Amino acid sequence: MKENDRLVRNITAKSEDFSKWYPEIIRKAALADYAPIKGMMVIRPYGYAIWEYIQAHLDRRIKSSGHENAYFPLFVPESLLQKETAHLEGFSPEVAWVTQGGADELEERLAVRPTSEAIIGHMYSKWIKSYRDLPVLINQWANIVRWEKVTRPFLRTTEFLWQEGHTAHETQEGAQEETLKILALYKEFSETELAVPVLSGEKTEKEKFAGAQMTYCIEGLMSDGKALQMGTSHDLGQNFAQVFNIRFEDREQTLQYAWQTSWGVSTRLVGAVVMCHGDDSGLKLPPRVAPVQVVIVPISVGDWKETVLPVARQLEVSLKQAGIRVKLDAREEFTPGWKFSDWEMRGVPLRLEVGPRDVKNNQALSARRDTREKQPLSLENIADPVLKLLDDIQNNLLQSARKFQKENTHVVGDYAEFKTVLEEKKGFLKTFWCGSAECENQIKEETMATIRVVLMEEDRDSGDGGCICCGKGSQEQVYFARAY
Amino acid sequence: MKENDRLVRNITAKSEDFSKWYPEIIRKAALADYAPIKGMMVIRPYGYAIWEYIQAHLDRRIKSSGHENAYFPLFVPESLLQKETAHLEGFSPEVAWVTQGGADELEERLAVRPTSEAIIGHMYSKWIKSYRDLPVLINQWANIVRWEKVTRPFLRTTEFLWQEGHTAHETQEGAQEETLKILALYKEFSETELAVPVLSGEKTEKEKFAGAQMTYCIEGLMSDGKALQMGTSHDLGQNFAQVFNIRFEDREQTLQYAWQTSWGVSTRLVGAVVMCHGDDSGLKLPPRVAPVQVVIVPISVGDWKETVLPVARQLEVSLKQAGIRVKLDAREEFTPGWKFSDWEMRGVPLRLEVGPRDVKNNQALSARRDTREKQPLSLENIADPVLKLLDDIQNNLLQSARKFQKENTHVVGDYAEFKTVLEEKKGFLKTFWCGSAECENQIKEETMATIRVVLMEEDRDSGDGGCICCGKGSQEQVYFARAY
Repeated sequence: MKENDRLVRNITAKSEDFSKWYPEIIRKAALADYAPIKGMMVIRPYGYAIWEYIQAHLDRRIKSSGHENAYFPLFVPESLLQKETAHLEGFSPEVAWVTQGGADELEERLAVRPTSEAIIGHMYSKWIKSYRDLPVLINQWANIVRWEKVTRPFLRTTEFLWQEGHTAHETQEGAQEETLKILALYKEFSETELAVPVLSGEKTEKEKFAGAQMTYCIEGLMSDGKALQMGTSHDLGQNFAQVFNIRFEDREQTLQYAWQTSWGVSTRLVGAVVMCHGDDSGLKLPPRVAPVQVVIVPISVGDWKETVLPVARQLEVSLKQAGIRVKLDAREEFTPGWKFSDWEMRGVPLRLEVGPRDVKNNQALSARRDTREKQPLSLENIADPVLKLLDDIQNNLLQSARKFQKENTHVVGDYAEFKTVLEEKKGFLKTFWCGSAECENQIKEETMATIRVVLMEEDRDSGDGGCICCGKGSQEQVYFARAY
Repeated sequence: MKENDRLVRNITAKSEDFSKWYPEIIRKAALADYAPIKGMMVIRPYGYAIWEYIQAHLDRRIKSSGHENAYFPLFVPESLLQKETAHLEGFSPEVAWVTQGGADELEERLAVRPTSEAIIGHMYSKWIKSYRDLPVLINQWANIVRWEKVTRPFLRTTEFLWQEGHTAHETQEGAQEETLKILALYKEFSETELAVPVLSGEKTEKEKFAGAQMTYCIEGLMSDGKALQMGTSHDLGQNFAQVFNIRFEDREQTLQYAWQTSWGVSTRLVGAVVMCHGDDSGLKLPPRVAPVQVVIVPISVGDWKETVLPVARQLEVSLKQAGIRVKLDAREEFTPGWKFSDWEMRGVPLRLEVGPRDVKNNQALSARRDTREKQPLSLENIADPVLKLLDDIQNNLLQSARKFQKENTHVVGDYAEFKTVLEEKKGFLKTFWCGSAECENQIKEETMATIRVVLMEEDRDSGDGGCICCGKGSQEQVYFARAY
């Protein structure tokens, strides 16, 4: 167990220092590395594979709900970005500008897209002519650049990968329905695939997307008690349609502006998976997005290459045939103990050990990453119990995260209590808010807490309460937290 | 048939003017549209779906041959791009430069990646320490920007999408083997999935990738008799390893530079599919990359909504269940004749018509896009014959393209004949070349033809011939063509 200890010593324990643990485990598990450009990262194969599973699960949902993928240009001419004033003000401090092409100075600066409403709005104005062209339901998988001052791998980087949906509708109701449909889709996706439970609701005026009528979001609680915005869905109203002149002839032959939405999630979700489930030993990946779901470690003693290894190889084949993502770690330069803790650190949900005694008993010893429970499994039809265990692990991660969220959500009634709870317990603070930007700003300045979601009407408790800051009676129930 | 005529009149016939037909069909079939930025395009859903099938088919092959995907930054600092001199000279005229981030002027210009050897080389120097770390087999799906003077949708655009493989090996033989393995993979992929037969071979010194030791490529013949480079695989030798200091401790504990390769195909392949198979009526898509493989057109006469439509819907369900990409066109504002020619123009491989008589006979009338053959199919277990027809269409497209390529490949022995054949027949000209840049340049200047591939030794005919330009005896057999 010496190597085992040595390996664990290489990472700061999460329980000791979360903010040191996070970047260390990202690099140690080879999810990502720092790039030689300010605030940029390289997503390494193990991290990128998680993103590929996120993409696959989400893309399936996006398509089966009627959307199609397309691809719009990376560059947005400055004049287009300037059209929507709030949008410009929101994004211009973060824009990287291309000013030279080959040997030539450009006549107009080109923004490297910080988001694509402007360029897409311009194209929609050419494509949408009649109500028959609506709805337009388009999604794009793309890279985005925002010149961020403070960055952290996956959570906030100068470049990131995301999907951005951009839809146009005949009616206001059509756009509202779409916005909420995607919000529900994101919530279901996050809980089913990432095992990360989320709150959903509205953003405040201050926190909404630059140019939107209303922003909805999902918010997860990370295991250090801080909130993470994991996805947003914007009802754009006719704001962009008006400035980009997206008009259609309606059923009564009059010209109308289209109603639009936009929505997105990004590689930030990889960070959410790390921060929600990880522990002192490293990552704990939900089976549905784990690049390796099962690792087989042969116990390398005696004549293991002749006795144990062939059985391990056969086991690998059986699991592969059942569609399980399995890896056989037959490396000779490492001991089984070292491999155990290495794969634990990398978050593989299930380990199967095969040693001489297991071969004799026609079994493998399973070890769960989440509960560390061990259980012998007969090699006969082993895929069935393995699939069952993977399901159990996925469910257990979600239930544990739900329990954590519940235990770290505090209903608070007065401001002094608010401050104490925030300092001592962290997590979500459920309370009332009068709706004024003054109170919102004051709370942020004094406590660094922000309103993560304003509950939608159907989610509110009946009755009202006093604003946590000014005491004014209010029906607006909100969740505060410190956030990433 | 009036609408039918009208629709066809909207596109220039391919046989009349290929270079007008190409951009017109791209827009008419809604594959792509022009963007408001010089040389950039928007890939619309129908065109992007073709790219998604190309990606899926190719990604499967890349992964099953042992490669993993990753993601490297969009920006490359100028100092990194400058390290490999030939590489810099090759790419610097085409680079878009970011010079401002937010409100700040950057201290160092950042290139929007024209390719990623430099940034990846930098990272590999950090990751590769021992022979145990090799081979590194990484692929990336990404967008690329090259400031092109003359652009054409899909074929040459300022921004395009591609995959770029970047591998590092312990030995020179390892890198050579990888380069050729990928070349063979590209050829098999192009022929199996795109139904586009290709020549493969080496590039000349003049045409090789900036910084490579040797470039291999696949070249397709478009139906106007011009060649298209469809993919390249580069043996980089130790060129980049030396300038980026990618060194490893070998099995004898001495430091060695790694041997590298890089290889890529791009959205240009969508253009290849259009130009290889299209005809006067529009696109002709190979079933394996067609977004819609089968379109069902109900014949809208009399009480069709009560009689025909339910049968058409049931047909749609049966085909979907068999995994076929099917679309039911039940639009009321268009006649069946208009729909026939619209879907023909969009290249859907197979049409199924369902009219009142078909319902009575429990059948659908199939019409192939490639041969225009019609054939009634019983609705009983209809998925089987439909799948069989789709296979036949895929094969027939490949065979037709092979036949075209054969008929348009001319063995020429003297320069006068070379010029006449090139002018009158176009296509590939197979001949001998002495290997000198002088002859290569002279031929290009005088005829606009370039050497598309130098045949590899095992593909050459036995014996030698005289260089088509200077007459000097040579064993270097080459294919010339005018190219995109």
